[in-house]
Amino acid sequence: MKTDTRDRAMGARQICKALRDQIVGGVYGLDSRLPSSRALATELGVSRTTVTAAYEQLAAEGFIEVRQGARPRVAPAAIHQNPTGGARQIAGPVRLSSYGDRLRMIAPRYQEASQNLIADFRYGDLAHSDFPALGWKRAVVAAMANDPTRLTYNDPRGLKKLRMALQGYLWRARTLRCDLEQIIIVNGSQQGLDICARLLLNPGEKFAIENPCYTMGRHVFSATGATPVPINVDKDGLDTRQLAGTDARLAYVTPSHQYPLGSVMPIGRRYQLLDWAQQSDAYVIEDDYDGEYRYDINPVPPLYGLEDNHNVIYLGTVSKTLSPTLRLGYLVVPHQLHDVFAMAKQLADRHTPTMEQKALATMIENGAYESHVRQARRRNSERRETLLNALRHRFGDMIAVEGADAGLHIVVWFPDFERSLENDLVEEARKRSVGVYPVTPLYDPGCPEAHPNQVGLVMGYAALNIQRIERGIELLRQAVDELRIRKRASLTMAR
Amino acid sequence: MKTDTRDRAMGARQICKALRDQIVGGVYGLDSRLPSSRALATELGVSRTTVTAAYEQLAAEGFIEVRQGARPRVAPAAIHQNPTGGARQIAGPVRLSSYGDRLRMIAPRYQEASQNLIADFRYGDLAHSDFPALGWKRAVVAAMANDPTRLTYNDPRGLKKLRMALQGYLWRARTLRCDLEQIIIVNGSQQGLDICARLLLNPGEKFAIENPCYTMGRHVFSATGATPVPINVDKDGLDTRQLAGTDARLAYVTPSHQYPLGSVMPIGRRYQLLDWAQQSDAYVIEDDYDGEYRYDINPVPPLYGLEDNHNVIYLGTVSKTLSPTLRLGYLVVPHQLHDVFAMAKQLADRHTPTMEQKALATMIENGAYESHVRQARRRNSERRETLLNALRHRFGDMIAVEGADAGLHIVVWFPDFERSLENDLVEEARKRSVGVYPVTPLYDPGCPEAHPNQVGLVMGYAALNIQRIERGIELLRQAVDELRIRKRASLTMAR
Repeated sequence: MKTDTRDRAMGARQICKALRDQIVGGVYGLDSRLPSSRALATELGVSRTTVTAAYEQLAAEGFIEVRQGARPRVAPAAIHQNPTGGARQIAGPVRLSSYGDRLRMIAPRYQEASQNLIADFRYGDLAHSDFPALGWKRAVVAAMANDPTRLTYNDPRGLKKLRMALQGYLWRARTLRCDLEQIIIVNGSQQGLDICARLLLNPGEKFAIENPCYTMGRHVFSATGATPVPINVDKDGLDTRQLAGTDARLAYVTPSHQYPLGSVMPIGRRYQLLDWAQQSDAYVIEDDYDGEYRYDINPVPPLYGLEDNHNVIYLGTVSKTLSPTLRLGYLVVPHQLHDVFAMAKQLADRHTPTMEQKALATMIENGAYESHVRQARRRNSERRETLLNALRHRFGDMIAVEGADAGLHIVVWFPDFERSLENDLVEEARKRSVGVYPVTPLYDPGCPEAHPNQVGLVMGYAALNIQRIERGIELLRQAVDELRIRKRASLTMAR
Repeated sequence: MKTDTRDRAMGARQICKALRDQIVGGVYGLDSRLPSSRALATELGVSRTTVTAAYEQLAAEGFIEVRQGARPRVAPAAIHQNPTGGARQIAGPVRLSSYGDRLRMIAPRYQEASQNLIADFRYGDLAHSDFPALGWKRAVVAAMANDPTRLTYNDPRGLKKLRMALQGYLWRARTLRCDLEQIIIVNGSQQGLDICARLLLNPGEKFAIENPCYTMGRHVFSATGATPVPINVDKDGLDTRQLAGTDARLAYVTPSHQYPLGSVMPIGRRYQLLDWAQQSDAYVIEDDYDGEYRYDINPVPPLYGLEDNHNVIYLGTVSKTLSPTLRLGYLVVPHQLHDVFAMAKQLADRHTPTMEQKALATMIENGAYESHVRQARRRNSERRETLLNALRHRFGDMIAVEGADAGLHIVVWFPDFERSLENDLVEEARKRSVGVYPVTPLYDPGCPEAHPNQVGLVMGYAALNIQRIERGIELLRQAVDELRIRKRASLTMAR
């Protein structure tokens, strides 16, 4: 018979066993202390004597060290590092929604940043030394100080203070004009894309996407059950002529700086894109992920604002200007959509955390954000210059560089190496503690004919200092040489 | 012919016009300053002379005030408060996904907290004076100090540091044991529910839900296109006997403290619920939204852990212990699901903001979180005592109180008033600056037969001090008297 646990308080023995299991399981780190006997007794609803008895037993068994007046500490000898990381995988049958099943096929797995590389050219990372630590800290502390008397859920669209600050910023920085209601604060551009995908795409419908593209964009749209229509990218960005007749319901584009190839879409194509969207009753999602970074060129105003804005959704982020860890981005949506976007955001997670919103608003209001952006642009311009010089110096005509006008990355092509050598190059570089990332995975796997026939690398430089960039390229040259020797050897063998 | 805007820098006239529109549109608040001429010139890619000319023109027109060496300031006379709030609504035809169309029907609109009430018994709000401001500030400042050299996306499951801290906390506070991999940090329980809904429910499938229930839960599951199967709630929580034959694919329950009626589910029903889930291959989502608050009763261990955990997903939050504005919650999922939950979280928004995660981990590690929870429990116990006494004192036998054993709210029934008077009572109370909230909207609108036949109020007390609670109940009594007089008058008239 099953009895009511409400009448069954835990005994010292049970507590002792559970704590022992936790200690053996590595729950407590080397410096970790167990809760005080009073605290644990309150939590478990047992008498303090019961907890004390359990602690005494554990101390007697050598699991913990007890000292008068201090919380018990796990004995160093009792700490067992689980060599497998402790993941007990049970591969049972799992019943998921179609969405869940699709996710398991798409499977974008998180990859932790490699430690101990001399130079890691991974795109998307920023240097901590660029972060405006003092200004941000001030803004955060100020945000914590002026909390209201009542802690309550905020507006799902975001704090008015931040939306007002962004409204001004978008005009100043991007000549983008919009009403307050059109701005929706999201947790980074990823959430912006996810909300667009959910609200605008049905399973079985089509979406147009650049090829190559930002893969997390392709994943998030594909996860809805819609089918990607990959559109080739050339030196002017997405080839808008290929849109006709695709029957796509939305197009996801990066016109300010195509990801990854870096082209800037000229005005002619922009109008073509908008014409297509209007004629097809389709939406254009304009991801302005690094619009703040441009070097040799004048600013190009975003697509948003070129027309009456019934079809364009603009997406911005601070992941490239402040930090990707803040999870702050913003959508600017057409008037007729702001209600439903606010509802979707509210159902998704109520609202974006208030502290970051307040802090960013303060930094925009007092000018610190824009002065930081200018500084970050200067620093990244230096990094880019260093990278381009180092590549020229070490590789000369051996390579071709694309997309250096804007953004925080370039694409480097190796015409002498056919694509099949991509992973070999990545590996050789890794042996020399250099992280480089191939471009092929960013192409649609369903269109092998569109894949480049040479090795290409996407090289992000925003997280590196000048020395590491130079050393990294020197080592990359060594990796390339190694590959060439090997290639020559295999050619000789083949003769 | 459309020309390339890249060759078309903005003129002083354009800049002037745009700034004028912004000022008239109220983009700049009373204290707001325009960007410096140097900053704006850089942003717009024009010469500083052009910007200076625009500023001079605006100053001449009286829109701004320019002083040597300072950023221009909007002239007080130029600030026009838009009386309509500036929302230019364009109600055009909108093409949305089925999800989007469903959202527009469900339409959970955000309601701002009412200002200037003497006592607002809205549930979900907390008192700012309860927030451990100093401890949190210390933890946040510490979190900002130990940033790594590289700013990069984090693990979608959440920081290991926080998951380890929670693993210990869940065992100490809730006797819940799990592996690190099973914990997924989410942006408050709302995101946890949304991820469950997406991964576990298909359109057309059924989900079992308490009636009455937490409506944001019903909305988020309904939004997937699945159909709710409302299950009645009695003094022991969800009536598990009604689950048989429902063909529901998941059940969403609040067994520690049913929302809103407050019952605690006894062990017998818990086993019935788990048996049903196992036999039906269904999932149980256990929302432990206020498990930290219990008063006259011993702790009840969560459903999660009673069985082998193949079917139960546990959901916790700090919205009731720290603040709903932090957007921090956590899922504990069965082993076979942790991979796909991590993928869903990554696609949804990469990860929860790092700063809050670090700060919460620090507060759990150093014991500040649990000592805060104990303090918050004590304070809320006092508020609850005050509320119950005030109700007894002012209403005596006129009312019945439900769900006071745990949580941060109670339900107050008025057997003398039939349900149709609910809105009248809310209105009368509001006239006296008291915010009360009816229980009927929490019942499934599709089952009118299950609706209560008396007026019921859900009364949250966590945001109020003792004086406001007492005064609020005194005023509520006046509202009730007014209603009784009116009722008697209408009865007399009817005779």
